[in-house]
Amino acid sequence: MQLQNYACGRWHTGRDRGVGMRDAASGEIVGNASSTGLDFAAMLSHARDVGGPALRALTFHERAALLKAVAKRLAELKEEFYSLSFRTGATRNDSAIDIEGGIGTVFAFAGKGSRELPNSRVYLDGAVEGLSKGGTFVGQHIYVSREGAAVHINAFNFPVWGMLEKFAPAILAGVPVIVKPATVTAYLAELVVRRIVESGLLPEGALQLVCGSLGDLFEHLNCQDTVSFTGSADTAGRLRVHPTLIRHAVRFVAETDSLNSSILAADAKPGTPEFDLFIKEVVREMTVKAGQKCTAIRRVLVPADRAASVTSALVAALSEVKVGNPENATVGMGPLVNAQQRKSVEGGIQSLSKEARTAYQSAKFMPVDADPQAGAFVPPTLFQVSDASKSPLVNELEVFGPVATVVPYRTKQDSFAIAQRGGGSPHRSAPT
Amino acid sequence: MQLQNYACGRWHTGRDRGVGMRDAASGEIVGNASSTGLDFAAMLSHARDVGGPALRALTFHERAALLKAVAKRLAELKEEFYSLSFRTGATRNDSAIDIEGGIGTVFAFAGKGSRELPNSRVYLDGAVEGLSKGGTFVGQHIYVSREGAAVHINAFNFPVWGMLEKFAPAILAGVPVIVKPATVTAYLAELVVRRIVESGLLPEGALQLVCGSLGDLFEHLNCQDTVSFTGSADTAGRLRVHPTLIRHAVRFVAETDSLNSSILAADAKPGTPEFDLFIKEVVREMTVKAGQKCTAIRRVLVPADRAASVTSALVAALSEVKVGNPENATVGMGPLVNAQQRKSVEGGIQSLSKEARTAYQSAKFMPVDADPQAGAFVPPTLFQVSDASKSPLVNELEVFGPVATVVPYRTKQDSFAIAQRGGGSPHRSAPT
Repeated sequence: MQLQNYACGRWHTGRDRGVGMRDAASGEIVGNASSTGLDFAAMLSHARDVGGPALRALTFHERAALLKAVAKRLAELKEEFYSLSFRTGATRNDSAIDIEGGIGTVFAFAGKGSRELPNSRVYLDGAVEGLSKGGTFVGQHIYVSREGAAVHINAFNFPVWGMLEKFAPAILAGVPVIVKPATVTAYLAELVVRRIVESGLLPEGALQLVCGSLGDLFEHLNCQDTVSFTGSADTAGRLRVHPTLIRHAVRFVAETDSLNSSILAADAKPGTPEFDLFIKEVVREMTVKAGQKCTAIRRVLVPADRAASVTSALVAALSEVKVGNPENATVGMGPLVNAQQRKSVEGGIQSLSKEARTAYQSAKFMPVDADPQAGAFVPPTLFQVSDASKSPLVNELEVFGPVATVVPYRTKQDSFAIAQRGGGSPHRSAPT
Repeated sequence: MQLQNYACGRWHTGRDRGVGMRDAASGEIVGNASSTGLDFAAMLSHARDVGGPALRALTFHERAALLKAVAKRLAELKEEFYSLSFRTGATRNDSAIDIEGGIGTVFAFAGKGSRELPNSRVYLDGAVEGLSKGGTFVGQHIYVSREGAAVHINAFNFPVWGMLEKFAPAILAGVPVIVKPATVTAYLAELVVRRIVESGLLPEGALQLVCGSLGDLFEHLNCQDTVSFTGSADTAGRLRVHPTLIRHAVRFVAETDSLNSSILAADAKPGTPEFDLFIKEVVREMTVKAGQKCTAIRRVLVPADRAASVTSALVAALSEVKVGNPENATVGMGPLVNAQQRKSVEGGIQSLSKEARTAYQSAKFMPVDADPQAGAFVPPTLFQVSDASKSPLVNELEVFGPVATVVPYRTKQDSFAIAQRGGGSPHRSAPT
């Protein structure tokens, strides 16, 4: 399968074969992605001159209705997406988060647009405010659509949801989208975009697709465009300093690494529903998408006197997790997305093992219904430390796989301080 | 006068004499500013560890009350600020915008805080939203105070207002401020900060001051800090790519150059109140602060058939403007802030004169009650073009002085397109 790009109203095949994408479980080639030969400046102009005006001519309610129609169409086609999604290493459950989650997000934005926004093209921000005593000057803050393109650079882990959760608000805001999915799972994003384009629901220019490199697109950005990036902090740091972004103060939004935590409250003792929910959530967070979630719980913060009971409950639950071929319905956790990620996660596990005690690691691991060499399988691994302050790596290194560390805390303040060490604005949960 | 820095609860004198600041009208030295020897890392820690917690312990209403008290105190002391403000080249009217405008802004934020925010430490963003069907998981968006410092790098033109309009919302948000005024007019900002500190109204650590260079402060910023910059796009571009800002994704906000316009609507004919108001506003915008305002009207967009009548009305009004010593009550417009700005504006006028017809320039200019060589005087200059698309510089070059260009337009759409060429998000007004 040679992926195509959707640019300036036509499907384009790249001029070369480009980058190969492999099946996560079998290692077989799924397809190739190339954007060579695309005219990126023309794509931006197409978004600005064709897609933008068409979207801005619609009211919020009309755009919301478009989104609802797109979501309905995608929901009808979802089994096709589920089938292809197995190639990314996702189990049926994992794919539900990606596919149903993505479609549900489009429905949610459609609902917010029709319920919470006016049936007009601008959004009034507050009332008219007098600026001069005599009433000669008055002010009214309004939100209008930006007249540029929204360039969405997405992560590999949720090719559908990650795309649609950015697509929906941009369309609702009247801004045309250029999607650049992560290449490793671009085939699933391409299929979804293809189905949206075929539906004919969106005005032309509202959605374009680049599979592979963005070429010289950044050179052509201006101050009305937005780049929204999801991925590693390293890549974000490189993109953020692009001379064109700096010169034109192009809006650049990045969601990058973080070390999330879940805190077990002091009153949640073994045997309580909160304790059981906590164990279940941590195991789910470690194993869903094989831990390849930006919101996954990496640090399990527990009262010091409960470290042993939490660890043994987690070990018991983790030993029940069946790892293997995601198409096999008995399997609870699939492989990582590819061999490169497997190598990266194995390296991370090795680094953590120098600072933390290994509480759980499958001794003789063998994936169900799959080749352990060809697939990107990494079984769940649980670490435990006795003192967070003596294990800096636990608070610094995000291992993007089924890996977590049990970290004891003394007081509530202590637990917040440890959670903060993860930096950034990570996701946290606290069952109490 | 050797300016001082307020850091970590004490007034510090720089280790060297530092940079000299000159009186705009006479060219005499007003004082020197140096921050050499300050411990910038300690200042950030002081803000984060002392000022931040003290502010966050207050509710929005308590912070609003603080702001109101500060504004009242400054209003009592305003004559002292007016006296010093003459040195910046500001007339009494110019100073009113800076001083009363600044104090008024603090009152306004105090009012908004007490009327529009709750009497609590967090701000709820919407209602609790259910996240799971059984109600096990719910979500509540809240705004909390950022736990870093707000570093405010301000422009030279409004040393009081430019400082207070950033100071007030930061304090209301519970975030401690480190002010770094533009050095050329830092003496006025220093006086205002000194009076605020002396008032004892703010908790220690809530406000610190750097006169001169920020040294290695940027090296010590983290993701909870914010840098808010006002000044040239060039400087913003240089600061924005600082490795520490990139590495920690430090929030960086910049207000930089823009080429604002005012559009005379097609129905505003000579003789109507709208026409007269338009002429009055353009002249005011050109001459207030000698045109050193980021919101000043640089491009006067008028219906093509009204270009001649607008130009002649502006020329008549501009020839009435008395330029000279700002302390002289008969003077309508003072000098630019210093010789460097004068050179820059004179260069800009020369560049524009190659593309545009000079409609008004005082033939034998002599400032009232001042030495034309020693002071930074530049008389008002009006240009006119016949076709905006043939004069790119008019839409690209911001001359930061009493300079504007009359630009004819054909249709309403045409006028918006020309206005947009100014780039960025410039201020526009449209009397209709």
